[in-house]
Amino acid sequence: MADRYLRWTHTGPGRFLTRRLGLPRPEVLHRWTAERPTLEGGPLLHLTATATEGCGRKELREALDGCGLPVVHGRTDVAHGRTDGEGRVAAVLVDATALGTVAELSGVHASLHPLLRRLAPCGRVVLLGARPAPDDHHQAAAQQALEGFVRSLGKELGRGRTANLVRLAPPARVDSAASTLRFLLSPRSAFVSGQVIEVTAEGHAPGTADGGTTENGDGSGSGEGRRLALVTGAARGIGEQIAGRLAREGAHVLCLDVEQAADDLTRVADRLGGTALPLDITAGDAGARIVEALPDGRLDVLVHNAGITRDRRLVNMPADRWAGVLDVNLASVLRTTDHLLAAGALRGSRVVATASIAGIAGNVGQTNYAASKAGVIGFVRALAPRARAEHATTVNAVAPGFIETKMTAAVPFVIREAGRRMNSLSQGGQPLDVAETVAWLAEPASHAVNGQTVRVCGQSLLGA
Amino acid sequence: MADRYLRWTHTGPGRFLTRRLGLPRPEVLHRWTAERPTLEGGPLLHLTATATEGCGRKELREALDGCGLPVVHGRTDVAHGRTDGEGRVAAVLVDATALGTVAELSGVHASLHPLLRRLAPCGRVVLLGARPAPDDHHQAAAQQALEGFVRSLGKELGRGRTANLVRLAPPARVDSAASTLRFLLSPRSAFVSGQVIEVTAEGHAPGTADGGTTENGDGSGSGEGRRLALVTGAARGIGEQIAGRLAREGAHVLCLDVEQAADDLTRVADRLGGTALPLDITAGDAGARIVEALPDGRLDVLVHNAGITRDRRLVNMPADRWAGVLDVNLASVLRTTDHLLAAGALRGSRVVATASIAGIAGNVGQTNYAASKAGVIGFVRALAPRARAEHATTVNAVAPGFIETKMTAAVPFVIREAGRRMNSLSQGGQPLDVAETVAWLAEPASHAVNGQTVRVCGQSLLGA
Repeated sequence: MADRYLRWTHTGPGRFLTRRLGLPRPEVLHRWTAERPTLEGGPLLHLTATATEGCGRKELREALDGCGLPVVHGRTDVAHGRTDGEGRVAAVLVDATALGTVAELSGVHASLHPLLRRLAPCGRVVLLGARPAPDDHHQAAAQQALEGFVRSLGKELGRGRTANLVRLAPPARVDSAASTLRFLLSPRSAFVSGQVIEVTAEGHAPGTADGGTTENGDGSGSGEGRRLALVTGAARGIGEQIAGRLAREGAHVLCLDVEQAADDLTRVADRLGGTALPLDITAGDAGARIVEALPDGRLDVLVHNAGITRDRRLVNMPADRWAGVLDVNLASVLRTTDHLLAAGALRGSRVVATASIAGIAGNVGQTNYAASKAGVIGFVRALAPRARAEHATTVNAVAPGFIETKMTAAVPFVIREAGRRMNSLSQGGQPLDVAETVAWLAEPASHAVNGQTVRVCGQSLLGA
Repeated sequence: MADRYLRWTHTGPGRFLTRRLGLPRPEVLHRWTAERPTLEGGPLLHLTATATEGCGRKELREALDGCGLPVVHGRTDVAHGRTDGEGRVAAVLVDATALGTVAELSGVHASLHPLLRRLAPCGRVVLLGARPAPDDHHQAAAQQALEGFVRSLGKELGRGRTANLVRLAPPARVDSAASTLRFLLSPRSAFVSGQVIEVTAEGHAPGTADGGTTENGDGSGSGEGRRLALVTGAARGIGEQIAGRLAREGAHVLCLDVEQAADDLTRVADRLGGTALPLDITAGDAGARIVEALPDGRLDVLVHNAGITRDRRLVNMPADRWAGVLDVNLASVLRTTDHLLAAGALRGSRVVATASIAGIAGNVGQTNYAASKAGVIGFVRALAPRARAEHATTVNAVAPGFIETKMTAAVPFVIREAGRRMNSLSQGGQPLDVAETVAWLAEPASHAVNGQTVRVCGQSLLGA
């Protein structure tokens, strides 16, 4: 899991040689720790890209409450490309929600162009936009333009800085985006860049907590007692980190994995004060056995993380390798979710499934895996509106890119190096990066994030 | 524009060395010529992936009429992973429209796995699926899985073979997909791979021709007289090829470009028997002057191809470089289209705009260009349904990847080589490849293709 190249580039000779040879110089990313829980290097600067007001200063200030940064409301001089103020900023939030024409895009340029030199390493650019309107092709063009803009900017920023776009879908207002802004404007989103995340207002579940931040600044700990979470594939790797991350904010975690991993699983559950649930998720009675394991018959958080690979090119892939991957990675996700929904175990809950950038871009030797992970994306998109309307439950996915695990450590050196460097941050992600993203989607306050697939890939070249 | 490496790999020493060193060996793609207008190497094999019938054999046979290949209806033995028949096939069409569950995906594996060794070089795999249903998460998961599958397969196939997915959106039936299938199952789509194209039935324009293939097999020549097409940026490069391609099928082409390019423009227009229209598309009266140039006040085909780049990182980008690119590439597209729609010049017409994979994935130094091209995608998506409902006009976009032009010939060697090889076909595309794709979208028979952005990028790594 060690990225020796990254460490070397931060030694004296490494700094010298990478500069001379023009080699990639990945930044040591600032990730969340209890000692360094917020972004560093300056305040959060809030700018409005349009002449007409976007979200409103008061609303925005409330939404940003909890990100732990002092907020400065800046002004942009569109005509002269100036942004007021001096000194470093830790993050910039550009409000472009009122953007309705192509000409107004100049305000986005004018806001950010003079600011970029002031943005601290591991700083953040967040654009706040609106969903492209189906009945206004001028607004749709301008708002879609922000996507191409933010994806380019993410590739340009360097030094661990990221750029993301949050879209409000009417009638959502900025308060619906609060948990998302807190996540993106924190060290928790270190490996999330070039992403477009939509927030929608409908379906705000009665009885679920809205906001209320803990010391983690993550909106957990709503004071309604300990949350119960189930994580599949929790014995190691990314699943273990997800379980740990949910436990960190006080959840009781049911750690599920296959019998063969029971030793690892028990170790993880014991360490986290959770419960081990050795169980094959593809078993016909898996759903029923999960329901039996729920003390109150319900679950606050369900994380479908279990997954396998059985790589081979299609021309050489026997039927069992195909069927095995589809069953573990996709069919079991559908079966378990259906069972828990029918049993009433998901009410005001958060379902998060693990997809993959392979499910978006495809990958050689992974027709089975990519099909299963694309299927997860299709599942999330289709079920989400109904799950929220009928069960006040959100359904989302994370799509990891190159993550440093035992699995990727076994990849041959050249391919591993290519996989690691071919993203905007020039390094692989950590399992914690995926876990932080899952935890944000699992927050009670994230009720307005639904049906989304968020890549945790450092803006990998593969998959846009 | 010469790809010397590609040519070298097809010499004796080149073959030897590329094999020994494991270097990419790009295939010489079979593109459409009057002498070789259809795919080669065997028949088209039609298979159904599901136990229940998909499209119906008779319907499908009619839809495939005009692709110029003998059609063989095959059978798949799902249990044993066998597909009947022997010998090479030029193309495989797998009907997965009835696919409704994850378990049924095994039929896709069983259809294609045993067939791949029989697929000729430059052969085609086309999957026919259905739009993921918003109210059935099982069908949505299975149908979305096809996207991950086809994207992986496109990366595996090699030797100039491509894989694409066509989705029928209810109530569309396979006859709505006829022009799309003819395109994908022909040498005209040589550089289109890993794409998902949706066809929708509504809005079949009364009075527009449906089908009726010419010797080009492209559904043009509806017998209603010569079609009138306008191509912007037609003096050179991709625009020149688009104008030529539309003229090849008998259209009279209005070739538009700036005054400074008037010499080139006149040369192109004269060669094609068209009309030169020297005009700055960003001028306030551009729309009015175009309408004046229309003999009958209407236009069958409008191709927004004019575009410029003014690359620079955002931190170094002055406001004029930003505004210029946005105005030419996006604002003028909106203004011209609005004017022509309001003037009634677009009725039963085809509008095609040029986007770019940079508008999907972003690109370093191109925040302005990527914003403009993403804007084109947003414009197309938003306007398409209304344009078809109110004007019987379709609106689509093509998104070129690395295309061999004078512009890319000027790129430094290493970057050019990386750009060329980083796609599933290991080579750059030709301007003709973009033109063929535009011509397919511009066919009268393509009335069911609307609001789509189709990449012409050989399945570039950048942008999935």
